[in-house]
Amino acid sequence: MKSDATESDIRRVVETIESLGFKAHPMPGANRTAIGLTGNQGPVPTDPFADLPGVAECVRVTKPYKLVGRDLKHDKTIIKIGDAELGGEEPAIIAGVCAVESYEQTMLTAEVVAEMGCKWFRGGAFKPRTSPYAFQGLAEEGLKILADVRERFGLAIVTEAVDEPALDLCERYADVIQIGTRNSQNFSLLKRAGQARKPILLKRGMSSTLEEFLLAAEYVMSEGNYQVILCERGVRTFGSHSRFTPDLSVIPAAQRLSHLPIIFDPSHSTGNRETVIPMARAAIAVGADGILVDIHPYPERALCDGPQALLFDMFREMVGQLRAIAEIVKTHSAVHNVAAQGA
Amino acid sequence: MKSDATESDIRRVVETIESLGFKAHPMPGANRTAIGLTGNQGPVPTDPFADLPGVAECVRVTKPYKLVGRDLKHDKTIIKIGDAELGGEEPAIIAGVCAVESYEQTMLTAEVVAEMGCKWFRGGAFKPRTSPYAFQGLAEEGLKILADVRERFGLAIVTEAVDEPALDLCERYADVIQIGTRNSQNFSLLKRAGQARKPILLKRGMSSTLEEFLLAAEYVMSEGNYQVILCERGVRTFGSHSRFTPDLSVIPAAQRLSHLPIIFDPSHSTGNRETVIPMARAAIAVGADGILVDIHPYPERALCDGPQALLFDMFREMVGQLRAIAEIVKTHSAVHNVAAQGA
Amino acid sequence: MKSDATESDIRRVVETIESLGFKAHPMPGANRTAIGLTGNQGPVPTDPFADLPGVAECVRVTKPYKLVGRDLKHDKTIIKIGDAELGGEEPAIIAGVCAVESYEQTMLTAEVVAEMGCKWFRGGAFKPRTSPYAFQGLAEEGLKILADVRERFGLAIVTEAVDEPALDLCERYADVIQIGTRNSQNFSLLKRAGQARKPILLKRGMSSTLEEFLLAAEYVMSEGNYQVILCERGVRTFGSHSRFTPDLSVIPAAQRLSHLPIIFDPSHSTGNRETVIPMARAAIAVGADGILVDIHPYPERALCDGPQALLFDMFREMVGQLRAIAEIVKTHSAVHNVAAQGA
Amino acid sequence: MKSDATESDIRRVVETIESLGFKAHPMPGANRTAIGLTGNQGPVPTDPFADLPGVAECVRVTKPYKLVGRDLKHDKTIIKIGDAELGGEEPAIIAGVCAVESYEQTMLTAEVVAEMGCKWFRGGAFKPRTSPYAFQGLAEEGLKILADVRERFGLAIVTEAVDEPALDLCERYADVIQIGTRNSQNFSLLKRAGQARKPILLKRGMSSTLEEFLLAAEYVMSEGNYQVILCERGVRTFGSHSRFTPDLSVIPAAQRLSHLPIIFDPSHSTGNRETVIPMARAAIAVGADGILVDIHPYPERALCDGPQALLFDMFREMVGQLRAIAEIVKTHSAVHNVAAQGA
Repeated sequence: MKSDATESDIRRVVETIESLGFKAHPMPGANRTAIGLTGNQGPVPTDPFADLPGVAECVRVTKPYKLVGRDLKHDKTIIKIGDAELGGEEPAIIAGVCAVESYEQTMLTAEVVAEMGCKWFRGGAFKPRTSPYAFQGLAEEGLKILADVRERFGLAIVTEAVDEPALDLCERYADVIQIGTRNSQNFSLLKRAGQARKPILLKRGMSSTLEEFLLAAEYVMSEGNYQVILCERGVRTFGSHSRFTPDLSVIPAAQRLSHLPIIFDPSHSTGNRETVIPMARAAIAVGADGILVDIHPYPERALCDGPQALLFDMFREMVGQLRAIAEIVKTHSAVHNVAAQGA
Repeated sequence: MKSDATESDIRRVVETIESLGFKAHPMPGANRTAIGLTGNQGPVPTDPFADLPGVAECVRVTKPYKLVGRDLKHDKTIIKIGDAELGGEEPAIIAGVCAVESYEQTMLTAEVVAEMGCKWFRGGAFKPRTSPYAFQGLAEEGLKILADVRERFGLAIVTEAVDEPALDLCERYADVIQIGTRNSQNFSLLKRAGQARKPILLKRGMSSTLEEFLLAAEYVMSEGNYQVILCERGVRTFGSHSRFTPDLSVIPAAQRLSHLPIIFDPSHSTGNRETVIPMARAAIAVGADGILVDIHPYPERALCDGPQALLFDMFREMVGQLRAIAEIVKTHSAVHNVAAQGA
Repeated sequence: MKSDATESDIRRVVETIESLGFKAHPMPGANRTAIGLTGNQGPVPTDPFADLPGVAECVRVTKPYKLVGRDLKHDKTIIKIGDAELGGEEPAIIAGVCAVESYEQTMLTAEVVAEMGCKWFRGGAFKPRTSPYAFQGLAEEGLKILADVRERFGLAIVTEAVDEPALDLCERYADVIQIGTRNSQNFSLLKRAGQARKPILLKRGMSSTLEEFLLAAEYVMSEGNYQVILCERGVRTFGSHSRFTPDLSVIPAAQRLSHLPIIFDPSHSTGNRETVIPMARAAIAVGADGILVDIHPYPERALCDGPQALLFDMFREMVGQLRAIAEIVKTHSAVHNVAAQGA
Repeated sequence: MKSDATESDIRRVVETIESLGFKAHPMPGANRTAIGLTGNQGPVPTDPFADLPGVAECVRVTKPYKLVGRDLKHDKTIIKIGDAELGGEEPAIIAGVCAVESYEQTMLTAEVVAEMGCKWFRGGAFKPRTSPYAFQGLAEEGLKILADVRERFGLAIVTEAVDEPALDLCERYADVIQIGTRNSQNFSLLKRAGQARKPILLKRGMSSTLEEFLLAAEYVMSEGNYQVILCERGVRTFGSHSRFTPDLSVIPAAQRLSHLPIIFDPSHSTGNRETVIPMARAAIAVGADGILVDIHPYPERALCDGPQALLFDMFREMVGQLRAIAEIVKTHSAVHNVAAQGA
């Protein structure tokens, strides 16, 4: 749509699409609204749309993903929860506990996160564990603790849903619903996430290609939820010095193809506290829109993934470094964008 | 339990386990019944069990998987549906259509499968597709066609459940429920499969280690369903001459660690009709308990994975080859087992 | 060239190619001789050749590899050393010691190999070891022991050259020169191998794509040595149940693209004696032209890779199984080829 | 050795080691000299050394690599060529052409490198190419051009040796000799590099584990050349959005285990100009000791890897960003080291 298209122009295009039996996907951007069309079996004639008021252009998307791509919507998608923002100028630092283990552990952690001026809190109430005999999370009890964190510290809450009943609960208690790497091609859960009214943080599958990763996001968006955050979390390779091999090169590649924001998880990708800070710095330097990081008041007693959790002091130091690096990257991007517009 | 343990001996051990607050898993084998105990946080004293009538020995399993392993149950698990058998002397050839597309396509295929003396039929009614816009299967309508195949040809039906509602339906219509590679760490679905009363065919995740693969089976078994068939279907590597890299070395490795039968899918692993027959031969030669293979009356018109489907004549030729190779492997194993018992 | 082309017809084409400043590569096949042309920067006009006597057709090869491919030479290449044959009807079993450690160890092993009617013997005199402090082979002393094996048992000798001086020596003492996986892209060594007058057994790089594998063979052939045996030896993946992941799917894929024979190494790929026999069976079943296998009289004392070496009795049993499976595969191929010619 | 050990103390320890039939490896560090001992078959008694003057402690290294590790030498190794330094406070930017194609192309590039205040120049005279028919470099003619670059701009020259004759030449003309990824386990070439009197830049094999990477360096050092620079250049995975998957996590991991400096090659790892700058930023942020980067005056006409070469303006912009990020990382490390010393 043109940048001066009115609400009623948009509504008219949506109605035209629907009257032809297709699905319309209006996605507002910073400057203009893009409207995706899906549900077609083959090419759709552009005649019915081209002359409608407010229409700027009709683009046929030949990539397998439609709504995810920059062909349809060029403006970057920004996720906002209150004053927390992801995809904008500042990198989002989503910090917290891997698993919510107790009220005390969670509150101690949240206090440090808030004290450092971060706006987002992560915590797992449902934990997908490789062994059926491992601790699987506090479930709704954990979600209530997270809701208390929001209440007390004003932090936006990110938590994982491992299945549809969990997603129902997360939708009620949390601000952003995470889909984990092991569910990255659980298409039923992705569709359910697409019906949720909360943003979805979608982790890349541990052996997903970039195209599969984007198509997982397309599953969510094709159901009408356009608030998707991509998250790189390491891929499976032969390497053993790191739990997974963090693939930072996917971040600029995804940003070229998609308008969705993308963040990085240095904790689960490396599994090693000592490597978390350097990799977090690298992620911000590469241009990620944020990080998702585990911290813990006493990691040696953690019920899940203790060795990767930062100590509080390490976290404080890291935040300072990340902000300084982000400043450099931002300055550069500004220069770069001005140059690009001039070209 | 001893080989002459009675039903009431078994019941008594089960009751003792349950009275202590644990979960009991009685698994009958060819010679004797093994009873697993799970739900413990740490080591459980063996005193209450060691002297019960019919108890042969108490084994503490230190591996992360308990019920899956040979430590607990040495006898190989055999899956039987009517006169169809998997895990016994003859390799099971589970052939059919990738996706049930129509009554005619399915019946034409089933006729050839039955004509070749095979006992199992595969067909997908729910298809997990990478793109939300691809054909996703006929759902219940497909399951009804499959039930007709069983009715008409006496074939045991194997079909995939992609989520819990699908699993409810599959449990009603099919004989064996498949969990696909993309759901291999969908732990909620695995638990639900563990509550089903039908055997589960569990595909290896495309980047699962052997331990993760066995732990996925453990999820199913820990819920009380001990009828699990493992299935290798290729792993993701840098290679591009095959859709995935078939890992036949996992078959003898799994057989050493687990009593569960394991089969191979040459169709989805290679994605290429020309490679299917050689790889199917290789799987039988390596000692797999069977194969899962796609055929199609007119693959050029298939809605899903046509390039990997065998033509009917290729299938007929393959069956003969597989049976001849199985004969050689069986003869060898007999010799080998006699030698092993003598040692 | 036509099947009735004379020696002088062939010579004339070769001379014409050379007179234009290119390199000619005459490769005789079972029915006809193919003559490759390399050294060109762009397309070469076919006019000068098309009408020469004995020329059947001029084919422009668009693939990156020229001499390796079936486009140029359709007949399969067969390697012959005395009465040892590789690439023909019977699978070649190249058995022996990983490293030549002593005269006694080598002779004991060779005796068993000869006793089983095998025609080929492998033994390493130069061992490429990951650590500079590990046993690196007996060098020329080892080659002399191998020459004694040929003398005494009439076996064709296969041994690895790790660099150019070693290749000079191997060329003097052995029948087939192996280039190992770690040198699979050591292009200088490949060129030197291309100048050798002995066949080259070229192992696939542990992370080589099929195209890179074929281009490594092309390096050898582009220097004028057309006697190349390809060897799959496992690729590096995330898996840990096997030392490398044996990729049998590369065998039919290579056979479709290339006229070169291809064999499989079940010992170095798996690193585990128990898996060697099943994987060797699988390789013959998939259609490999042979295997390369380690055996040892007392593997617990081996200086290199003991855990993968078969005991003598295991070897004897394996040979019988492989021959029986080869018979089935051969019968099938005969049927298949007749059918293909009829089509 | 103690920090106040004299030259003659060191000589005496070396002589004692050699008199026992072992090899001595004296490696000076910022504060003290470490002396490695290799050539032993089993544990060596420490008695002969412990009381020699100047000896601080005797450490038995149980890791497979001895000279590479921090157990032996804790101080970081710094490589110095004139006023060019690598491994010290400032990150080294080694920029230049992938292949030396002409005098003009090389000089134009070197001018920009020098103008930006960089001290190192890279350029390939011998190119290891996957196809035998691709441009393989200008050989000695290229080395002469590189020597002119040093003459004219005072830049330290880094160039690759693909085999031993090339290494002889590189040793004569260049300042640092690169061993490429395809030769990372060409042990004969590594030993030859160990006899060179110039520092070695050793690229990680495209599927090397960290241990294999360090053992490759150990090969060089075990021959007496302790000036080794490690270089991560991406590993082979299933991903296709980048030519290789850059593994930045190996950088802090290597730094924990080894005293050798480690740099990153964003050009060959990604193969894509657009990704080079973000990945170079990430490498500096993760703490790499430098980068190795391709630039080109007119990449569209490059004979080798044009798509990954930065344009001059991109290079200029990148250098500024890298220096700013390095400043942040350095500040942090200083704080961190002070803290570590206090602990």
